[in-house]
Amino acid sequence: MCELLGMSANTPTDLCFSFAGLRRRGGACGPHGDGWGIAFYEGRGVRVFHDPSASAHSRIAEVVETHPIKSEVALCHIRQANVGRVALENTHPFIRELWGQYWCFAHNGQIGGFKARPGVYQPVGDTDSEHLFCDLLNRLRARHTAQSHEADLHAEIAHAASEYARMGVCNLLISNGDWLFTFCSTRMATITRRAPFGPARLRDADITVDFEAETTPNDVVSVIATDPLTCDEHWERFAPGEWRIWKQGEVVRREHADIPVFAHSNPA
Amino acid sequence: MCELLGMSANTPTDLCFSFAGLRRRGGACGPHGDGWGIAFYEGRGVRVFHDPSASAHSRIAEVVETHPIKSEVALCHIRQANVGRVALENTHPFIRELWGQYWCFAHNGQIGGFKARPGVYQPVGDTDSEHLFCDLLNRLRARHTAQSHEADLHAEIAHAASEYARMGVCNLLISNGDWLFTFCSTRMATITRRAPFGPARLRDADITVDFEAETTPNDVVSVIATDPLTCDEHWERFAPGEWRIWKQGEVVRREHADIPVFAHSNPA
Repeated sequence: MCELLGMSANTPTDLCFSFAGLRRRGGACGPHGDGWGIAFYEGRGVRVFHDPSASAHSRIAEVVETHPIKSEVALCHIRQANVGRVALENTHPFIRELWGQYWCFAHNGQIGGFKARPGVYQPVGDTDSEHLFCDLLNRLRARHTAQSHEADLHAEIAHAASEYARMGVCNLLISNGDWLFTFCSTRMATITRRAPFGPARLRDADITVDFEAETTPNDVVSVIATDPLTCDEHWERFAPGEWRIWKQGEVVRREHADIPVFAHSNPA
Repeated sequence: MCELLGMSANTPTDLCFSFAGLRRRGGACGPHGDGWGIAFYEGRGVRVFHDPSASAHSRIAEVVETHPIKSEVALCHIRQANVGRVALENTHPFIRELWGQYWCFAHNGQIGGFKARPGVYQPVGDTDSEHLFCDLLNRLRARHTAQSHEADLHAEIAHAASEYARMGVCNLLISNGDWLFTFCSTRMATITRRAPFGPARLRDADITVDFEAETTPNDVVSVIATDPLTCDEHWERFAPGEWRIWKQGEVVRREHADIPVFAHSNPA
């Protein structure tokens, strides 16, 4: 299993604080030492970092933690390999271009033996996660066009995610830079920070940040993670089957799909 | 115009020395301060770094220069913007997945007003370079399959590159990780290093490396760049229209396309 982290904000915001916590679960205070990756949208572009080594000890992760990269949508994943060997090509987030936009995808869970339906997109590595992503994009390309309404795309993605979640554990994040889609199969939690801002302390590292000093009164920043990253704030847990669309830090759509509840067998 | 750097090696090799030289042309001793990017293949995976700021002053470029990432095929580009604003989405190398492989592309030159033919691949940014790349992939996908012979793919790419080079300046690097294709429209130079190795000194920085100490006797490493990067080695210049396929540090195919010779108006 793995750890996921997503961010949606109404102003370019860095992810240094949250990443500092998550990163330590990759080889220091968590078992997820089989690589990590992060994608930061900046306008239409996306900046990605992938490393098949443990994030807690990665020189590149250190730069990502200490060099603020500001983004309105970001996705991060640290990996504990189950399907697919530890290798760069199996490191999330996965990226493809669809309709002139970069789409990024990160998955927590396991859907044994899953293979993408045939189509334009083919996996490069051998994880079930990349197969899910290619399957989803092939499905979107088969049933929609660049002119499709965003709401129809979201419904299609949610429908696909629910199908996957009936086959196994499928917590996922997907974005095209305009919006962030989150789907909870077994575990996902979120916090939205807005004025008045206060301090927060990481669970996984002795780091406190005073958001008051880092923000302006209009900033709205939501963080979504497989498990809460701070110990002194209230995180809201998602129900299994719940999916949300995030834009500029706010939930703009929230629905619930009917899925079976799997045992929480994945390590926290 | 821009600067290109490619590498093909028979053993995983870092690009720190060459990148140290090239990077200084991005804002220090050259005008190419409009972003830079690099792609390192590692097996089927590819690790990319993109930064829309000047490479000479980029914290991420500093990490790439000092943190050896070992690869058998690498492509690098530093940008002096002409078509397309300075932005992450316009930063080379561009990447797409085709037939379950990541393809990377970097271009030096300008082909005003060029638009990709319609197809699966669409540009995300607005450079002529990304249009060229999408055009090339759409052409490959329209005329070939994953089962096509490599030699036929190379001939198709060379044919397309020659067409582009009749419309404007088109020095380019493209790879799928198995091979590196280089096409010279106006300027490109190369050096192959093999035993007995000696020292080399960068043109653009006061840095000398002793390859003898860094290599084993069986290593073969070729570096391809728009202009020679060292001042005390013999670099071979390509003729306009010359294209080569590189595998494991060696040229495995070398041909010549008939293209018009443009004036060398691009800054060195």
